[in-house]
Amino acid sequence: MQTLAIRGGRVLRPDMTVTEADVLVDREGGDIVEIGPDLDGDETLDATDGLVMPGLVNAHTHVAMTLLRGYADDKPLETWLREDIWPVEAALEPADIEAGAELGMVEMIRSGTTAFADMYFEIDRTAAAVDRAGTRAVLGHGAISAGKDDEAARADIEESVAMAAQVDGAADGRVSGAVMPHSLTTVTPELLEFAAERAHEKGVPVHYHANETRDEVDPIVDERDQRPLAWARDLGLCGNDDFFAHGVHLDDSEIDLLAETGTGVVHCPASNMKLASGMAPVQRLLDAGATVGLGTDGAASNNDLDLFDEMRDAAMLGKLAADDASAVAAPDAVRMATAGGADVLGLDTGRLEPGAAADIAVVDFDAPHLTPGHDLVSHLAYAVRGSDVRHTVCDGDILMRDREVLTLDEEAVVERAAERARALVERAE
Amino acid sequence: MQTLAIRGGRVLRPDMTVTEADVLVDREGGDIVEIGPDLDGDETLDATDGLVMPGLVNAHTHVAMTLLRGYADDKPLETWLREDIWPVEAALEPADIEAGAELGMVEMIRSGTTAFADMYFEIDRTAAAVDRAGTRAVLGHGAISAGKDDEAARADIEESVAMAAQVDGAADGRVSGAVMPHSLTTVTPELLEFAAERAHEKGVPVHYHANETRDEVDPIVDERDQRPLAWARDLGLCGNDDFFAHGVHLDDSEIDLLAETGTGVVHCPASNMKLASGMAPVQRLLDAGATVGLGTDGAASNNDLDLFDEMRDAAMLGKLAADDASAVAAPDAVRMATAGGADVLGLDTGRLEPGAAADIAVVDFDAPHLTPGHDLVSHLAYAVRGSDVRHTVCDGDILMRDREVLTLDEEAVVERAAERARALVERAE
Ligand SMILES: [Zn+2]
Ligand SMILES: [Zn+2]
Repeated sequence: MQTLAIRGGRVLRPDMTVTEADVLVDREGGDIVEIGPDLDGDETLDATDGLVMPGLVNAHTHVAMTLLRGYADDKPLETWLREDIWPVEAALEPADIEAGAELGMVEMIRSGTTAFADMYFEIDRTAAAVDRAGTRAVLGHGAISAGKDDEAARADIEESVAMAAQVDGAADGRVSGAVMPHSLTTVTPELLEFAAERAHEKGVPVHYHANETRDEVDPIVDERDQRPLAWARDLGLCGNDDFFAHGVHLDDSEIDLLAETGTGVVHCPASNMKLASGMAPVQRLLDAGATVGLGTDGAASNNDLDLFDEMRDAAMLGKLAADDASAVAAPDAVRMATAGGADVLGLDTGRLEPGAAADIAVVDFDAPHLTPGHDLVSHLAYAVRGSDVRHTVCDGDILMRDREVLTLDEEAVVERAAERARALVERAE
Repeated sequence: MQTLAIRGGRVLRPDMTVTEADVLVDREGGDIVEIGPDLDGDETLDATDGLVMPGLVNAHTHVAMTLLRGYADDKPLETWLREDIWPVEAALEPADIEAGAELGMVEMIRSGTTAFADMYFEIDRTAAAVDRAGTRAVLGHGAISAGKDDEAARADIEESVAMAAQVDGAADGRVSGAVMPHSLTTVTPELLEFAAERAHEKGVPVHYHANETRDEVDPIVDERDQRPLAWARDLGLCGNDDFFAHGVHLDDSEIDLLAETGTGVVHCPASNMKLASGMAPVQRLLDAGATVGLGTDGAASNNDLDLFDEMRDAAMLGKLAADDASAVAAPDAVRMATAGGADVLGLDTGRLEPGAAADIAVVDFDAPHLTPGHDLVSHLAYAVRGSDVRHTVCDGDILMRDREVLTLDEEAVVERAAERARALVERAE
């Protein structure tokens, strides 16, 4: 057994307590062997003055949209999608996806994120990037019916089913597949039902957008006299392994439904604020026992992939939504970004304990903005930023050591992404 | 004339456009001499791949509260103040203020903030820290009547008046004084009026908290049949140089009053979210022509002093408040953090133009999370974090070069603050 010892720091436990300990990792098995005092390994990562915590889980993004970061801001969702985002996306080439995905991967590794769920196009290119980067991902082809004839719409869903099977198990098992119909309103009911059936036959989850805006919820309620998620359950979209993004506008019956079915909810507070979609009832979801993770959504509506921002946003917006400053406390925010997200995605990560996947971030705590250290969990939620991450480990491999990304050539990735973004926008305009 | 040339970067202009240019600074005069191509100086700061922008203005904070960062979170304002914050503040010693202020100064310099307004105690200690740090500040003693007898309450306001005069002009003129009654509800009407009179006699502004929570607004309306800021104007608190923090709960008549009187409003979005105070009508204030800046409030309700976080929060929360994704656009957020804050505080800073104060931040733009560079102003609002700041200049002096703080010994400041925070909490508990 080749081992890695993360030494000299404090460790964030699954119950959100912090204790001084070392962490011993089996590099080949990719899991945590032991957490305790004075552990030696074949290799060592220094965690002095740092906190060893689970690698963060970004449970909903469109990673290659890093190429569109800052391309169009400050517009309502519908206008933004139709006038800015979709026209540029129509001009995307497979090499753009790969370049954008690599840029996102570097950004995530630098900010301590080791796993993510991605809905986009050309997902074999994203899988290849994940393979090189060393991260973990649930990938799916985002299928849309809107704007397509019946045949093309069905072909798109079939592509999503086929791609889920194709990428499942890629990158030495670090990639799994999911069927990803875009949303309850942009895919026809027949194809939503078809997607769920085929996904569950193949044993992969369904992932989609739901209940993001009032404009999306109201027509469903008007037309069907049913809440969107009750309808989604009827279509087969609310299995225990299935998960959806947003859930901004949920009533009590839907919150109960989500808790009962175990359907994962990915809260995307920055995107919900930036697009003025509303405030998700996060404390009520947590109180009901729903499985809740955090997502950045795409970099075009955020505008970064830093889960520490998302924790802070979740804790803060959750208080406003509940009209209660004690709602969505710091440990809740940290839990959603780690174990919560892992549970949403069905990954054995997000908790530091023997036997769990060795997906780990080490955060420096000696910076001025993290002084004094009254409460490190409070700091994780409110004051740490991605740039405070010193080392990132995934599946037992070191992805970043002392802020240097080891698996990808950061400078080349940044340069290629900048070039491709420039050319993409030129083609589209 | 000893000059400093900031070379090789792009420059953020007051109209929020970005052009390639160098910036030439008169180090002794402390102002900007010229902005244009190929400027040479006696000393050079390299801005390659960077954006030269005005130093940020934190228009409302309680800087020494850095010592209480993460000490008590996730509680309603009243409980939090009475059970956690005030008991510890009662145990503060002058050396704590100085240590906390220095920590805050290091944090602000590192994140590109060159000017701030501070309401706290022992402000001569803060003035001394500002003198060493090289920043710019408006300082005032926060006076409270609540919990004091008449005589003590009056003595406290008189202390605020006396301290404003004492610190005014300190640190080679970089410090100015203000009279700072804590809020419309924690200081008696008589003493609020007295504070305004004495401040205006002495030619210094009044600064206070107002319209932060509904619990604070409703009793004033009930008792006086008048909106709080109409009452504040009657008390003399709404002069053109006066400014207050929060303004979360404002009606249209108050927004008009603020625009007419020129009273500065300091929007503190993070604090307003964290304490569940509500969403300030920022777009309506901007539309009315009010003078609006941004503040972090104290680090205990934020939990950092990073104005880039505050810009992002302002842009995002402003959209939710307006129910409009086009509200509080990126340039508006950046303007509030620079020129807006400078106008609130009456400082000749916040705009890069010949003759203005040489208060400058240089932000690196080659990081993965700032790639590609479609729109740098969007990045400033949504993606830049304090740690992207490379150089900080104030009054023509270099406070940080290549991320190394030159005016204070960062390591010693961090260590002293951590120690004093530990001892403070022990004394209080
Ligand atoms: Zn999405
Ligand atoms: Zn305050």
